[in-house]
Amino acid sequence: MPLGDMRTPLLSNSFDTPEESLPCDPGNTTVGILGSGDYSRSLAVRLVACGYRVVVGSRDPKHIATGQFPDGVQLLTQREAMVGTEKVVFAALYPEHYHTLVGLRDVLAGKVLVDVSNATKLNSGEPSNAERLAELFPESRVVKGFNVVSAWALQTGAHDGSRQVLISSDCPEAKRTVIQLARCMSFLAVDMGGLASSRHVEDAPLRLFPSWGGPLMVTFLLILFFYGYNFLRGVLMPYLSRGQNNFYQLPLETMNETLPAVALVILALVYLPGLWAAALQLVRGTKYSHFPGWLDHWMGRRKQLGLLSFLCAGLHAVYSMCLTLRKASQYRLLDAAYRQVKAGVEHSWEEPQVWRSDFYLSSGILGLGVLTLLAITSLPSVGNALSWREFTFVQSGLGYAALTLSIMHTLFFSWDFAFFSFAYPYYMPPTYLLALILPCLVLVGRLFLALPCLAFRLAKIRRGWESPCHHPPQTQEDTANGVLPRDLSGDV
Amino acid sequence: MPLGDMRTPLLSNSFDTPEESLPCDPGNTTVGILGSGDYSRSLAVRLVACGYRVVVGSRDPKHIATGQFPDGVQLLTQREAMVGTEKVVFAALYPEHYHTLVGLRDVLAGKVLVDVSNATKLNSGEPSNAERLAELFPESRVVKGFNVVSAWALQTGAHDGSRQVLISSDCPEAKRTVIQLARCMSFLAVDMGGLASSRHVEDAPLRLFPSWGGPLMVTFLLILFFYGYNFLRGVLMPYLSRGQNNFYQLPLETMNETLPAVALVILALVYLPGLWAAALQLVRGTKYSHFPGWLDHWMGRRKQLGLLSFLCAGLHAVYSMCLTLRKASQYRLLDAAYRQVKAGVEHSWEEPQVWRSDFYLSSGILGLGVLTLLAITSLPSVGNALSWREFTFVQSGLGYAALTLSIMHTLFFSWDFAFFSFAYPYYMPPTYLLALILPCLVLVGRLFLALPCLAFRLAKIRRGWESPCHHPPQTQEDTANGVLPRDLSGDV
Amino acid sequence: MPLGDMRTPLLSNSFDTPEESLPCDPGNTTVGILGSGDYSRSLAVRLVACGYRVVVGSRDPKHIATGQFPDGVQLLTQREAMVGTEKVVFAALYPEHYHTLVGLRDVLAGKVLVDVSNATKLNSGEPSNAERLAELFPESRVVKGFNVVSAWALQTGAHDGSRQVLISSDCPEAKRTVIQLARCMSFLAVDMGGLASSRHVEDAPLRLFPSWGGPLMVTFLLILFFYGYNFLRGVLMPYLSRGQNNFYQLPLETMNETLPAVALVILALVYLPGLWAAALQLVRGTKYSHFPGWLDHWMGRRKQLGLLSFLCAGLHAVYSMCLTLRKASQYRLLDAAYRQVKAGVEHSWEEPQVWRSDFYLSSGILGLGVLTLLAITSLPSVGNALSWREFTFVQSGLGYAALTLSIMHTLFFSWDFAFFSFAYPYYMPPTYLLALILPCLVLVGRLFLALPCLAFRLAKIRRGWESPCHHPPQTQEDTANGVLPRDLSGDV
Repeated sequence: MPLGDMRTPLLSNSFDTPEESLPCDPGNTTVGILGSGDYSRSLAVRLVACGYRVVVGSRDPKHIATGQFPDGVQLLTQREAMVGTEKVVFAALYPEHYHTLVGLRDVLAGKVLVDVSNATKLNSGEPSNAERLAELFPESRVVKGFNVVSAWALQTGAHDGSRQVLISSDCPEAKRTVIQLARCMSFLAVDMGGLASSRHVEDAPLRLFPSWGGPLMVTFLLILFFYGYNFLRGVLMPYLSRGQNNFYQLPLETMNETLPAVALVILALVYLPGLWAAALQLVRGTKYSHFPGWLDHWMGRRKQLGLLSFLCAGLHAVYSMCLTLRKASQYRLLDAAYRQVKAGVEHSWEEPQVWRSDFYLSSGILGLGVLTLLAITSLPSVGNALSWREFTFVQSGLGYAALTLSIMHTLFFSWDFAFFSFAYPYYMPPTYLLALILPCLVLVGRLFLALPCLAFRLAKIRRGWESPCHHPPQTQEDTANGVLPRDLSGDV
Repeated sequence: MPLGDMRTPLLSNSFDTPEESLPCDPGNTTVGILGSGDYSRSLAVRLVACGYRVVVGSRDPKHIATGQFPDGVQLLTQREAMVGTEKVVFAALYPEHYHTLVGLRDVLAGKVLVDVSNATKLNSGEPSNAERLAELFPESRVVKGFNVVSAWALQTGAHDGSRQVLISSDCPEAKRTVIQLARCMSFLAVDMGGLASSRHVEDAPLRLFPSWGGPLMVTFLLILFFYGYNFLRGVLMPYLSRGQNNFYQLPLETMNETLPAVALVILALVYLPGLWAAALQLVRGTKYSHFPGWLDHWMGRRKQLGLLSFLCAGLHAVYSMCLTLRKASQYRLLDAAYRQVKAGVEHSWEEPQVWRSDFYLSSGILGLGVLTLLAITSLPSVGNALSWREFTFVQSGLGYAALTLSIMHTLFFSWDFAFFSFAYPYYMPPTYLLALILPCLVLVGRLFLALPCLAFRLAKIRRGWESPCHHPPQTQEDTANGVLPRDLSGDV
Repeated sequence: MPLGDMRTPLLSNSFDTPEESLPCDPGNTTVGILGSGDYSRSLAVRLVACGYRVVVGSRDPKHIATGQFPDGVQLLTQREAMVGTEKVVFAALYPEHYHTLVGLRDVLAGKVLVDVSNATKLNSGEPSNAERLAELFPESRVVKGFNVVSAWALQTGAHDGSRQVLISSDCPEAKRTVIQLARCMSFLAVDMGGLASSRHVEDAPLRLFPSWGGPLMVTFLLILFFYGYNFLRGVLMPYLSRGQNNFYQLPLETMNETLPAVALVILALVYLPGLWAAALQLVRGTKYSHFPGWLDHWMGRRKQLGLLSFLCAGLHAVYSMCLTLRKASQYRLLDAAYRQVKAGVEHSWEEPQVWRSDFYLSSGILGLGVLTLLAITSLPSVGNALSWREFTFVQSGLGYAALTLSIMHTLFFSWDFAFFSFAYPYYMPPTYLLALILPCLVLVGRLFLALPCLAFRLAKIRRGWESPCHHPPQTQEDTANGVLPRDLSGDV
């Protein structure tokens, strides 16, 4: 869209007749903005587009080329602008300049002062910008908000960035005014509570994928562990004991042994907390008891874990499909051909090996295919189109199918050398044996829970039934956090 | 959505009384909830979050830890709660306990009673829960609704699940009240008509991908047919007639011959109904006649068929790329090297074979690439960003490109052994010949329709022109189903 | 979101004044439609669904089977229908029939006449349909709109197509009425200005991926150049000079040398304009000066370029993984085995080659993996869920990671034959050398900007600081286009 269009309201909201007044009726409301930087400009563009009158207060209004603001915006001195504003004032300055506003205390008294600044570093422990602003202007009603929206999103209509706006304030009425204003500007306001939470709101734009930290760390540690183990078992020990030079395996082969092991273990970690939760409910005989915090946290990270498992599995697949492109495999094939000719063997065909390789390839491909379907349904636009039952079917049903296929893939791959002593050099079992432990436990656990007696009891508990001998009811403090019924996120 | 639903408003917006002001003014409205289970809690959380006052009626209100409900929710006995409720009451109990409410008939009289329950099994043929509730409370106005929304979606703000809420009731005014309420809770209410449709509404959450049933069945049958045919032709007959053991081909090779055939036939099935419809319009000389029901149904499943075709094609690609990883292909290569050395052939190069393999690989890769673009545009968030012309171009233009490339892929693959008698053992033609029949017919049909005289006449018909000699105008009953103009979904 | 937040209203909706009535109150408004074709029917369906009364005016109302329109729609003659309409009339006829309406001038006077027609061809230079309609009805207030919405989207509720409706008119009040109406029909109205822009609005549905034209052209030219160069260097010149027949390389090998070169150059083109913009800001000492138009345009096409680079890289990956399926590579392998046996070489292993191939495969796979993540975040539904910082991190951080990995992939691939004279036959350097020039320049430029002194100055400029010696302030005309602050789209 050409930027010139920004001037004309995206949605013209001013109606003449009083009967047709709107939920978002900017009417003749005048909104003030302190500061004349980028954010001020973008706010002005959006506010004008939504039908508001805008007054911008600058220290030196003559210095500013008026063309930088949309038509109809008044550029005044800070004091003049504040006098002309009825109710809402945006403080669009860097926090380090807040003290320069102190002289405006009298004209800002009683007004709603919106702090749109971001924190400069995470978790500094200091009071938030909004709290400092509230201290400077005790007679104004300070509201934190809009900082999560970029100037770009303000101007272009919020289709590029997130549409959520986090709002916090100690004054409920001021908060309501700003929430209303945000809605008129087509944002989704989320009430975050009192000004004490503004630190959290200011930190929000600085956080980088906060829900991915834990899962990424787990993945990284698993890669480190399995890569180290493979290096020790396949490269370092043979070199130390027999002087065999396998170092060429490090970039690709060792990595391609590590990735499937990591993918398998992480996939098991996706389904382990659900089993744990079910076991807790069975033992407690009720679903109304709390889960320990770590279990709650873990359950909230299953989607991320699942996607990381898919990533590792996908990389493993691509690495594997590139195996025959390697010079190493070409050399090996040529040497094998040489040996076969020298030995005079006409037919090298070994039927069990043929079956084995076809089976592990098939199960691997199908397992990855199912994981891909799972990953696709975790796209927001696809997932939102599913009903609850469909979502559950995909995440739980297909998930266990993927786990089963992956385990089969590993078992078929390893059947022919798991039971020979040469598979245990230096008393170190093969990687895939280590990687299978957890997935097999999860699968057995799931089958165990599918036993009719247990499944029936669990279904009863999840419908709200409580065992007469369950633990004493939780105290009120226990539940004060507005706990979410367990079964909702139960087995997914 | 069946087209018959088109008549009933998607969102009923006509309000009679002028007092019904703001779209969402909870004001001081008190909403009652019967029952204190999970769903009751989640409803209370959402209603309070949207500004309503909530009264929960429980058989034993003292037993409940108040912390389980949000602040401000009143926990009373069922009778007290119903007395305190003005208009809307949610019945959040299991249907088997509805009869316990009979004593409340007097205080529920005149109120809007919302049944939020689900069916326990599909298509039971019995009256719906809502109908049974309406029978129990003849003086209340029963509305079916909200059952498609999970407790989780209620609490977390409906971003995880679908936002649609299906509503049905025999009382238009009660329905309007609940639709209004749903909108205030940020759901999209869909009016499903009278209470007779509540069976359908109750079944909705139990249905698993209802629009995928037919296409999946077709795919499954095609896989069965082609796999069986390949098994017979490539494995069983050679074994019976010559004792040749090809059973090792079953897991991967036979599958990898089956998948592309299925993908090709399904892709043709995507474009066949559009041709059929065009032919019907040409023959009838009008677009205002109805298509037979099966054609309508088929046209509504083209997206699903297309995605399944893509799935099969994708699996075929991955299987093929894994072919050189198989032990079988290694053994074959080694044996070929042995034979070449023994025969003393220095150069095995056969130019036509080189061209053939490069051509079928190229056309296969490009065909799959085009299919991938098609699949991406069928993601809701991508498809919604396209204009109608872009959507048509992608679905029809790119679709026929994919079909043509797939046919070329098959022809290049098979050119060198389709014309030899050894390709027809036991009088069974090769699979790809069978798989090519329908796609070639579709392609020829499409080219036929592109003939200037036919294309011009079709364009005229789709602009609304009617041949003077077209069939007599349909009777009113014929069109009672609110037919959708044909050209809208015409050639896509 | 912590569940505790659920308690406080997400959107506080209580308004004090009772006058603020419904946003979309169709009340008893009657909307007229001229014409009884598909679009008329779909409009009627949607309007009735939104609570309006609808009158359809047809030249021959008795000829129409009433069942084709929803219940409640009145079918009258054109004149009767217009008399019964209060304010808004849709002209749902083909523009070539507008002149037949001239007799209705008196009953249409003062009414809002909505032209919903599309252009028949792009950029015809003639007056738009809406302008011609306005000429025919000087006393009516003509509004252009709804033409971008298909009849299908009107009927099914706009989930299949785009929800935007472009509106233009010379009468602000009429425009406001139609914008209001569009909103009640759940469309997003976009005000496009006066009727002079209606040509643009009428052309909109005919445009095919307007933002992809330039990037596609660049990609096509690059493919042409690199394919031609490869053909000349690898096929034509060897044939002319030595009579060597390499023509078999054309379909796959030459293409597979072309694609990675194109992908690499386009990826560099994604990041070049950002560097250029940063350099301009550094030199000018301010961010408030305009960028030249071509740079603005280029920066607006980075997403498309990035996706095309990903497409080429992905095709290259698939082509490469299919290399071992080619007959050519099988023949080569067999011949190599023959030579090895004849030469009596037992071990063909060459350690540096093994390392080289593993390194370039690994870096290629990882580079493509990172590009895939980038492509996924450019899906609308995924991108919208990211905060600004996350989006910047992905697009800039991961983008440069992908560029670096791709350069490494190319360098590892080529290290062993870039420095031999046989790599420069006919004085033509290898393709990958040409392809590396631009990416390496971009990478060096980026590292240069990361030098502390420059990075600090740039950060200062982007926070709004202006160098005292920067160029004279722009004149007002310069900024009249409502320029977007540069740092917003700065480095992404």
